[in-house]
Amino acid sequence: METDLIRYFRQRVPGHRILQVGLGDDAAVLELAGRQYVLTVDLLSDHVDFELSQVDPVRVGRKLLAVNLSDIAAMAARPLAAVIALLLPRSGGAKLAKALYEGLLPLAHQYDLAIAGGDTNSWEGPFSASVTILGESTDRGPLTRSGARPGDQILVTGWFGGSILGKHLDFQPRVEEALLLHQRYDLHAGIDCSDGLALDLSHLAEESGCGAVLDLAAVPVAEDAYRLAQQLADGSTPLEHALADGEDFELILAVPPDQARRILADQPLAVPVWQIGQFIPTPGLWEQTADGELRPLSAAGWEHKFNG
Amino acid sequence: METDLIRYFRQRVPGHRILQVGLGDDAAVLELAGRQYVLTVDLLSDHVDFELSQVDPVRVGRKLLAVNLSDIAAMAARPLAAVIALLLPRSGGAKLAKALYEGLLPLAHQYDLAIAGGDTNSWEGPFSASVTILGESTDRGPLTRSGARPGDQILVTGWFGGSILGKHLDFQPRVEEALLLHQRYDLHAGIDCSDGLALDLSHLAEESGCGAVLDLAAVPVAEDAYRLAQQLADGSTPLEHALADGEDFELILAVPPDQARRILADQPLAVPVWQIGQFIPTPGLWEQTADGELRPLSAAGWEHKFNG
Repeated sequence: METDLIRYFRQRVPGHRILQVGLGDDAAVLELAGRQYVLTVDLLSDHVDFELSQVDPVRVGRKLLAVNLSDIAAMAARPLAAVIALLLPRSGGAKLAKALYEGLLPLAHQYDLAIAGGDTNSWEGPFSASVTILGESTDRGPLTRSGARPGDQILVTGWFGGSILGKHLDFQPRVEEALLLHQRYDLHAGIDCSDGLALDLSHLAEESGCGAVLDLAAVPVAEDAYRLAQQLADGSTPLEHALADGEDFELILAVPPDQARRILADQPLAVPVWQIGQFIPTPGLWEQTADGELRPLSAAGWEHKFNG
Repeated sequence: METDLIRYFRQRVPGHRILQVGLGDDAAVLELAGRQYVLTVDLLSDHVDFELSQVDPVRVGRKLLAVNLSDIAAMAARPLAAVIALLLPRSGGAKLAKALYEGLLPLAHQYDLAIAGGDTNSWEGPFSASVTILGESTDRGPLTRSGARPGDQILVTGWFGGSILGKHLDFQPRVEEALLLHQRYDLHAGIDCSDGLALDLSHLAEESGCGAVLDLAAVPVAEDAYRLAQQLADGSTPLEHALADGEDFELILAVPPDQARRILADQPLAVPVWQIGQFIPTPGLWEQTADGELRPLSAAGWEHKFNG
């Protein structure tokens, strides 16, 4: 349903002279007084994005902000200010709200983000929150989803899969990493991995009007993907978890070959950067078989796992 | 609970060099590249702010945006862009979302507001939404809650009370009115009336470190306040509804006497402007009795009426 709705919104919502990038990217890009700002909102709810009964609310509070910072990172922008809307259960709501803030304030401090305001209501329903972050582009401009070109290499940071074992709460949004790469190298496009490596890569390719071929052997599979496959013992492989789990909040980048070679040689981040495939003219998501053929790859990703 | 929580947030959330006005006003004021922007979020939920089963969702969609525009109006700022987070019930969510947009898009167009993005999730719980608006101050700067001085007159636009009979959904946010008054006259402080005339006036007085005396005979009581008092037949008077109902979304302003005289004589808006009292050094909310004494007035306002 949500994909249909997003399509509806994109058709129905008009453009605007201040909107350089509207619906469909990790954040909107606004041009105001000759400068470029990014604006993004994320909604997280109990039983959908976490189970409050099973997790320390301090970690949930951190996640509320971190998810949004990851969207700012995907645009290679600098976070400026956030506003936070909390919809609290009537019972225990105040205690919960304070714990959430104990989680999000240190992260705000770390990223020099101003907590500018909020709105707080209580109701009979479960906990839900939305965080909106305003950021600013550097003089390199925003990194969007639509700039990938056939021949660009697919680079990613970190490791993928099994985030449900902990990383989905405690991940580090790649804000500084994105800023550094965008400053030093020529990047064509970027997205953060929230829905799953395969699905988010498909989004990026689609927005860029091209396709993507994955070198499955090169996908950096997280140790937790192995642990999760072992725990579940349902026949799913660690690689499948890496492709489909989501909430890794790593960067997926489209980089021209010469720049990709430099990044891979330099390894300028504390986290490793890997090349896992390339963009091609043919739309869709593909894997390269041993005999050099292209085989379609499912873009199935993680969508509201807690409900399904 | 919410008042306590807001106090906690204001103590706990640190300031930031870009934050000119933080928590506690209708919107935050950010200084970015020498310009002043305002940022505000509002959260509205089924069974709290409206009853979806009893109202056309198109009107609810309009209200989602209008409530937020009213906060921008209270800062005498110009709306620029909004992002919208929708938490939809799993059943009928897509249809609901489309109806909401049919309500909010015309209002966005009317105020030249860019719909910049959003996030949409579905869940088993009731409908909830949050809207964040970014606006910009004019060269007159933002109008805040903290600038009222003893001797300033209390001016209000429009009429108060009984908004539950319809105005709480169909009100016109006073964006243009606030911009015009702020441009032509010297205003000291402002707030929009969401929680109730008495309560919001108290907020403004408190943030300004002074008190307010109401001339009860001068309060413009809406026709719907009379209708509601008659319908309820619970002994409540139309004036009590005007003071306490809330969701009138009119402007409450602190204006120095000479400027107030000019505004009252000019009547520069399509809606009438009234003087209903003045600010005094003594904190608190007061009414003037026939013998010239000050009597404390309850600041009781409207809070989540739909929940009982």
